[in-house]
Amino acid sequence: MKSFSKFLSRLKDILGENKVFTQPKDLIAYSFDSSAAIGVPLAVVFPERKEEVVDVLKLIAEYKIPLVPRGAGTATTGSAVSHTQGLILSFERMNRILELNLEERIVVVQPGVLNGELKNYLKKFGLFYPPDPASYNYSTIGGNVATGAGGPRGLKYGTTKDYVLALEVGLPGGKIFWTGPLTLKGVVGYNLTPLFVGSEGTLGVFTEIVLKVVPLPETRVLLLSYHEKEEEPLEIISELLKALITPASAEFIDKTTLLALSKNKQIELHDKKVKSLLFLELDGTVESVKKELKKVEELYQMKGIFYHKADTEEKIESLWEIRRAVSPSVRVLGERKISDDVVLPRRNMKEFLKKIRKLEEEKGIYVCCFGHAGDGNFHVNLLFSSEKEEEAKSLRKAILKEVLNLKGTLSGEHGIGYVKRSFVAWELTPLQLELMRGLKKVFDPENLLNPEIKIPF
Amino acid sequence: MKSFSKFLSRLKDILGENKVFTQPKDLIAYSFDSSAAIGVPLAVVFPERKEEVVDVLKLIAEYKIPLVPRGAGTATTGSAVSHTQGLILSFERMNRILELNLEERIVVVQPGVLNGELKNYLKKFGLFYPPDPASYNYSTIGGNVATGAGGPRGLKYGTTKDYVLALEVGLPGGKIFWTGPLTLKGVVGYNLTPLFVGSEGTLGVFTEIVLKVVPLPETRVLLLSYHEKEEEPLEIISELLKALITPASAEFIDKTTLLALSKNKQIELHDKKVKSLLFLELDGTVESVKKELKKVEELYQMKGIFYHKADTEEKIESLWEIRRAVSPSVRVLGERKISDDVVLPRRNMKEFLKKIRKLEEEKGIYVCCFGHAGDGNFHVNLLFSSEKEEEAKSLRKAILKEVLNLKGTLSGEHGIGYVKRSFVAWELTPLQLELMRGLKKVFDPENLLNPEIKIPF
Ligand SMILES: Cc1cc2nc3c(=O)[nH]c(=O)nc-3n(C[C@H](O)[C@H](O)[C@H](O)COP(=O)(O)OP(=O)(O)OC[C@H]3O[C@@H](n4cnc5c(N)ncnc54)[C@H](O)[C@@H]3O)c2cc1C
Ligand SMILES: Cc1cc2nc3c(=O)[nH]c(=O)nc-3n(C[C@H](O)[C@H](O)[C@H](O)COP(=O)(O)OP(=O)(O)OC[C@H]3O[C@@H](n4cnc5c(N)ncnc54)[C@H](O)[C@@H]3O)c2cc1C
Repeated sequence: MKSFSKFLSRLKDILGENKVFTQPKDLIAYSFDSSAAIGVPLAVVFPERKEEVVDVLKLIAEYKIPLVPRGAGTATTGSAVSHTQGLILSFERMNRILELNLEERIVVVQPGVLNGELKNYLKKFGLFYPPDPASYNYSTIGGNVATGAGGPRGLKYGTTKDYVLALEVGLPGGKIFWTGPLTLKGVVGYNLTPLFVGSEGTLGVFTEIVLKVVPLPETRVLLLSYHEKEEEPLEIISELLKALITPASAEFIDKTTLLALSKNKQIELHDKKVKSLLFLELDGTVESVKKELKKVEELYQMKGIFYHKADTEEKIESLWEIRRAVSPSVRVLGERKISDDVVLPRRNMKEFLKKIRKLEEEKGIYVCCFGHAGDGNFHVNLLFSSEKEEEAKSLRKAILKEVLNLKGTLSGEHGIGYVKRSFVAWELTPLQLELMRGLKKVFDPENLLNPEIKIPF
Repeated sequence: MKSFSKFLSRLKDILGENKVFTQPKDLIAYSFDSSAAIGVPLAVVFPERKEEVVDVLKLIAEYKIPLVPRGAGTATTGSAVSHTQGLILSFERMNRILELNLEERIVVVQPGVLNGELKNYLKKFGLFYPPDPASYNYSTIGGNVATGAGGPRGLKYGTTKDYVLALEVGLPGGKIFWTGPLTLKGVVGYNLTPLFVGSEGTLGVFTEIVLKVVPLPETRVLLLSYHEKEEEPLEIISELLKALITPASAEFIDKTTLLALSKNKQIELHDKKVKSLLFLELDGTVESVKKELKKVEELYQMKGIFYHKADTEEKIESLWEIRRAVSPSVRVLGERKISDDVVLPRRNMKEFLKKIRKLEEEKGIYVCCFGHAGDGNFHVNLLFSSEKEEEAKSLRKAILKEVLNLKGTLSGEHGIGYVKRSFVAWELTPLQLELMRGLKKVFDPENLLNPEIKIPF
């Protein structure tokens, strides 16, 4: 405790009082993220320049104080929380867009820039940063990179990993380096950049981020279709991909999620036979969208599928509102919730859905299974009353086992953090784990960066 | 030597005589790649199944015999050669396409499949594996992944790293693992896959490769333009990118390379004022290509640029023949050649070219500077007579220093291998090198995999 107080006073000396918060009310405010995990930190610091981050990294190494980098704290896994009474390093005040280079199509940002702010900024130049987590208006690029965030556009545009050109990274002790050159290509040394994408603050602290950006598509159109056969949307996605059409997004709403949406009055179903929905967005040039749309509409007509079409920005956004209402709406099905974001190989999605429905019926617990079906990413939410807690936990395990049986993975975009760490060894082999622990040691040998999360030690 | 012969006899026991070559004539055949580096191996083995690769990996660990994995041996850096009297593990007989999944758009291959074979196979399904090293008809996917191979299409489509979904990797001792799940997304554990792309056989041996593929573009058109101002093509590329047009390829032929092409009768220049060429390919849907073409032609007309247009497969390929004739043609400028493949940030390409021309004039040594200008990748070839060897070597160093001054990188796609290893520490900081050595130790602690290359130890 003595060294704690010495550490804090050194911290204040270096950063100045107004960048170091130690009041209980502030510590409480930074003791949670969007998960149920809670951990009260020793202090929260708000550096404003990378030199200050380096100073903090020196100090934590000297005092062996664990550190958790933090963006907006929207993580759903407890990865933005200090579980070992450490320091929270918040990037809230490092939130500037530093440089846009139009001929290289790269943008350089500080980690605390919000994804939505960047999107708005780029729009003025006809450019576009595709990764679009639902939290984009309030999550940071630093957090997005550290979690490998994805979103509906993943199907056509990939996820955060596909847009990170290089990272400047600080390590405990204050060493700082770039993960790669700022050129569009390069094979000198090993390719370190992608190792940090999805590393959840356990390998290094990003101090600057270089992203690739792409031209905004000319136009887009959104179809919302209604299906009597629950698995039909999954079949349609496969058919389109086989027909060499790549939708920008293909979002699936299953039977149970649809029940939640209609109970919550987000959607009114006149036809009681409807069991699922598909949000299908096409984008590109005016002509290519027209052509693809024609094929999709022909398919829908052939199959007798009813759908709405939105072709103005306003109508499109109002349909997407329904999709965005899913997360809050599922709450109507039960006071307690357990959520996962699993990924299946596309070919196994139908079988997974069938298993889910069977398990749901057996256990009498609501299982929502919606999400980015285009790239195989299902958000599985269990909704139940508190007395069903134990049953729900065991159902969840059964579902995760099923994911692995079907050659899936336990997280597609939310990460592992604290709350899912105990399942990691179900998926990864002892050899994979041993190698990953080896990697962690290369960058953070004393386990000071976000300890207790990501990889089971 | 005794343990060598014991090792060899164990090898033959395990694999059978016909998969182990030890005759001098065979060893000589495998003692070089496409660089000047030479090294005679102890033996060459030709496994036919991954279990045999694992057996070999067990044996080399037991006998501490260094191993060099090898595809087609087209590497230009000495990375496919044994520099320490070790074993060559050739993937020539592991050359099958194992599975194509159309709804996931992934293809599973053995490492010895030729890039060109894969391209032909995919074409039948309307699909396309974009990375296109000039060697695509005779280099292997395993070698392409291990070098991070690129090509003209890099500008729009990226390089090999953008298409590797997962790798099965064997380590000395025979341990074998997948670098990630076979799903399109996933953030469980660390993202190991990209670490192996460009690792030049120093971190692990690939036994199976899963690649992403994309739909073939509907159509393409190629413009070959002639420029009186040498740097004009570089300006045009920047202008197009700023105007939100992304050509599929933008290949630059500088003044000195043009001299070589015309001396070698690959091209006949009626207009002696022409100083450089640009090969600009547009691809996509019929309409989008039409639209982009219109903009490009307007730009060319406005600038008074003369050009040829090819819009049938036949004409396009015959124009590309000129581009492909570059590498052999530059030889007419001198009996000796030193080649590099450096990358500059796009914004610094013009300045680099100016420096090159100045150095060329000062030293009286031909410097060709052509290549994938779209993504900043210049192939710099020095051509000279043998008595100028020393001057050429010092000129090369001056050029590499200039690349680093202008924030470039020393290799964009060919790799480091043996012949460029001494320059790596010019580019990478001691910290970067230390971290990379740490990574190497995680996977290959005894330095048995392709020792003596890639990272200076
Ligand atoms: C309503 C809602 C919807 C969501 N929808 C999606 C979705 O569609 N897709 C999706 O992928 N996620 C989604 N999420 C989860 C979350 O928003 C993402 O994981 C996001 O990327 C976290 O960003 P953040 O700035 O909030 O980071 P934080 O929560 O603060 O931190 C997340 C992780 O990043 C690390 N980190 C943060 N900054 C840095 C840095 N500079 N250097 C190193 N490490 C750092 C932290 O240590 C932590 O491990 C959603 C969350 C909510 C609440
Ligand atoms: C005429 C010509 C043109 C070229 N044009 C280009 C070009 O445009 N772009 C470009 O990028 N390159 C080009 N190259 C270089 C070369 O073709 C590429 O580097 C290619 O990727 C090498 O493939 P390969 O099968 O010949 O591999 P090899 O030369 O056999 O090996 C290359 C490296 O890969 C490793 N390796 C091979 N297989 C495996 C495996 N299964 N597991 C682990 N490691 C493995 C080897 O150890 C070695 O380090 C060219 C070469 C020539 C001769």
